Amino acid sequence: MTEPFDAVEVIVTKRDGGRLSDAQIDWVIDAYTRGVVAEEQMAALNMAILLNGMDRAEISRWTAAMIASGERMDFSALTRPTADKHSTGGVGDKITLPLAPLVAVFDVAVPQLSGRGLGHTGGTLDKLESIAGWRAALSNAEMMRQLEDVGAVICQAGSGLAPADRKLYALRDVTGTVEAIPLIASSIMSKKIAEGTGALVLDVKVGSGAFMKDLDRARELARTMVDLGTDAGVRTTALITDMSTPLGLTAGNALEVRESVEVLAGGGPPDVVELTVALAREMLASAGKDGEDVEAALADGRAMDVWRRMIRAQDGDPDAPLPVAKETEQVLAPADGVLLELDAYAVGVAAWRLGAGRARREDPVQAGAGVELHAKPGALVRAGEVLMTLHTDTPGRFARAREALEGAVVIGPEGSRPPERPLVIDRVAGD
Amino acid sequence: MTEPFDAVEVIVTKRDGGRLSDAQIDWVIDAYTRGVVAEEQMAALNMAILLNGMDRAEISRWTAAMIASGERMDFSALTRPTADKHSTGGVGDKITLPLAPLVAVFDVAVPQLSGRGLGHTGGTLDKLESIAGWRAALSNAEMMRQLEDVGAVICQAGSGLAPADRKLYALRDVTGTVEAIPLIASSIMSKKIAEGTGALVLDVKVGSGAFMKDLDRARELARTMVDLGTDAGVRTTALITDMSTPLGLTAGNALEVRESVEVLAGGGPPDVVELTVALAREMLASAGKDGEDVEAALADGRAMDVWRRMIRAQDGDPDAPLPVAKETEQVLAPADGVLLELDAYAVGVAAWRLGAGRARREDPVQAGAGVELHAKPGALVRAGEVLMTLHTDTPGRFARAREALEGAVVIGPEGSRPPERPLVIDRVAGD
Repeated sequence: MTEPFDAVEVIVTKRDGGRLSDAQIDWVIDAYTRGVVAEEQMAALNMAILLNGMDRAEISRWTAAMIASGERMDFSALTRPTADKHSTGGVGDKITLPLAPLVAVFDVAVPQLSGRGLGHTGGTLDKLESIAGWRAALSNAEMMRQLEDVGAVICQAGSGLAPADRKLYALRDVTGTVEAIPLIASSIMSKKIAEGTGALVLDVKVGSGAFMKDLDRARELARTMVDLGTDAGVRTTALITDMSTPLGLTAGNALEVRESVEVLAGGGPPDVVELTVALAREMLASAGKDGEDVEAALADGRAMDVWRRMIRAQDGDPDAPLPVAKETEQVLAPADGVLLELDAYAVGVAAWRLGAGRARREDPVQAGAGVELHAKPGALVRAGEVLMTLHTDTPGRFARAREALEGAVVIGPEGSRPPERPLVIDRVAGD
Repeated sequence: MTEPFDAVEVIVTKRDGGRLSDAQIDWVIDAYTRGVVAEEQMAALNMAILLNGMDRAEISRWTAAMIASGERMDFSALTRPTADKHSTGGVGDKITLPLAPLVAVFDVAVPQLSGRGLGHTGGTLDKLESIAGWRAALSNAEMMRQLEDVGAVICQAGSGLAPADRKLYALRDVTGTVEAIPLIASSIMSKKIAEGTGALVLDVKVGSGAFMKDLDRARELARTMVDLGTDAGVRTTALITDMSTPLGLTAGNALEVRESVEVLAGGGPPDVVELTVALAREMLASAGKDGEDVEAALADGRAMDVWRRMIRAQDGDPDAPLPVAKETEQVLAPADGVLLELDAYAVGVAAWRLGAGRARREDPVQAGAGVELHAKPGALVRAGEVLMTLHTDTPGRFARAREALEGAVVIGPEGSRPPERPLVIDRVAGD
C-alpha cells in the first residue's frame, strides 16, 4: 500500500510551527495504529506538538481520528438522556460512587466507563472491587440492559474504544510528553466521545494532589476539553475544583467506599457532599433537567436505592462488610494550634505506599489500605491528638508512608486561618 | 545495573528549557548506545534539543560523550603535523581530491576519513572508486603507514569511530530532527575529533545545493563547529562558501575525478582552483605552515606526484582510463543572452537521477553517470548551444533528470549580469 504522506514531512510541519492538515492528522493516527509510523516518529511529533501547540481545529481532528481508530458506543436506543462525568484525578476523589446513582434518580442514565489507579491517585474500579463479588467487566449488552433497568453503570472501558489513544498514552508516558494539553485533552475526550454520552461534565482538578498544579493550565485544559466536546456534539461543561487537600476524610479503596455510602445515606463529609451535589446539578442541567432537588435524593434514600441496585446488577453485595486492613498506625499532631495545610499529594503518596495504589499496571492493590484523616484544614488540634490513621496489610510499609507525609501537615498558632480556597473555583461552559 | 538517571527526567529537563548536566549527557548517550534509552525517548529528546537548543558547554559535552562511545585514533607518532578538511556537502564538490595531495606536498599529513553519497550530493569515496583497483577500506596500520610514506590518505571511516553518532544519525533521519544545529555540529565534530587530527578546516556551504540554505544558519553552524573543535584542542577554522551553483563543470563520480586531475595538472575550472587553494592555505596555516606557495605546487606537478602515489598506495591505477557512461544527451540553451542562474540543487538532483548518487545506502552508483556543464553563470550563450551534457548507462533516466533541471537555468538579456556572489563568503576562526 502506498502511503499518502511521509512521516518526516508531517513531523517537520509541526516542528516548524505549521498547522497539520485534516488529511495529515487522519493519516498519522491511522498509520501509527497500523505500525507504519514508528514509535520514534510519533515521539518526535508529540514533542513538537507539546512545544509548538495545536489549534482548536487540529485538536478536534486529532481527537476524531483517535475515535475513528476504534468502535463507538451508541445509547440512542435508551429511553432516557445520558450524562457522564470525568475527573482528571485527585486524592480521595470518590465522587463517582455517590454521583452516578444520584443522577440516575432523576431519570438520566449514567454510563460511567472508568479506569484503575496508577501512582498517587486511586482508580474508581479499584475502589468498587473492594465490594464482595462486584465485577468491573461488562459486555456492551449487559451495560445497555443495566442502563435501562437501573439507570447507572460504572464499569471498565472496553479495549475497543480509541485503541490509538491506548498506544499513544503508553508512548507519551516514557517520552516526557504526558504534559501536552492538546494530547491530554484529546486522550480524555476521544474515549468520552466514543463512549456515546449525550452530556458530559468535567471535573478538572488543580493543586498539589492534581495533575495540573497551576490554575492557568487547569483553565486551559478545561477550555480545550469543553471545546472538543462541544465540537463533537456532546453538551460539555467543566468545573475547576480544588485539590490542594484530599477530598473527604479517606484515601484508599474500601475506606472511600465506606465514605461514599455515608454520603448516600445522607451524611458524609461536607466537601464530598458539596462536590457531589454541584456535579449532579451540572449533569442534570446538561441532560435538560434543571432545578431538581438533588440534596433531597441523598437525604431520603432514593440515591442509596439506586446504588444498591447498581452494585447488585454487577454481582456485588451491598450489605457485605468491607475489607479492613490488618494493621493500623496513628499519626499524631506535633503541636497545639490550627491545622493550616494538609497536603493532598503527600496523603496520596502515603496511601499509595500503604498499598492502596500501584506503581505498575500489573500490580495488585490492597482493598483495606489507605489513609484516614481525623482533621481537615481549619480544625483546632492539640499536640498528641490523632491526625491520621494509616491502614495496611503489610506493616513494613508504614515507614515509607510516614516519609511521604513529612512536611505535609502545617499547624499555625491559635486564631490563624488556612488560606481561603473555594472547592469549586470556576465553571467553563461551551460556546 | 541500576541507572543513575531516568530518561523521562532528562527529556523533561530539555523540554522545559533547562540545561542538561554533564552527567545527564554522558549517561543519555551511553545508555542510548547500550539500548537502555529507547529510540522513541531519544527522538523526543532530539526534538526538544532542536526546538529549545543547547549551549556551548552542553554541545561540547554531547560531542565528547559521542567520542567516548567508540575508539579514538592517534597520529601523535607521526613525524609531521596533521590537518584535515570537512565539507558540509555540495554539488560538484570534488575539492578533497586535489586538496589532500596538495597539502601533503608541504609536509603536513592529511588523514581524510570520508563517506559515501546519499541524495543529491556525491560522496568522495564513490568518486575515487571510479579509479580502477582503488580501495576505500584501510586498516589503521595501513592508514598510518600511508600517512608516513605518502603524507595523504583518503579512506573510509572505520565503524569504531563514534558509534553513538551512527545510531543517532539514523534516528534523526526518520524523525525530522536532522536540522538541529547542535546535533549536526556534534555529529560532524565527534567523528573529526575522534579521528585525531591536529588541525581542521571546515567548508560550510550555503545555497540551494547545500544543506544550509541561508547564511545566518550557515554562520551559526560554522561558529558552533569551530567552538567545538577549539574546546577539544583541535585548531579549527571554517570558510563559508557559496553553493548556489555547482562547483566546477562536473557533477558525477568519474567526471569529477577527471576534473580533479585537471586541477592537479595545473589547469581546471577557476572556481575549483580558487577553493582548493583557499582551503589548502587554511589547512597549512592551522598546521603551522604560513606563506607557502600553494599555486606553484599545482603548476609544477608536485601535487600530482603525491596524488599518483596516494592512489597507488590504495591499489588504484592513476593511469587507467576512467569509466565513461554508455549514453549521453544534450541540454540546449533555450534563448540568446547571459546565463544568470544555474541552480546547484537542480543539477545535483539531475546527476543523482542519472545514476551518480543513491537514494538508499545499499544502492549502487554508476561511475560514469552525471552532468557536465559547458557554461557557468555570467557566460554569454546562444539559443541552441549545448549548455549541459547528461551522462548515464541507463537512458530511461534522461527524462527524470530533465524534469529536475526544469527552471534551473535562467537566461537574461545581453548586458545583464548574474548576482555578485563571492565563492568564499566568510571565515570563522576559534577564539
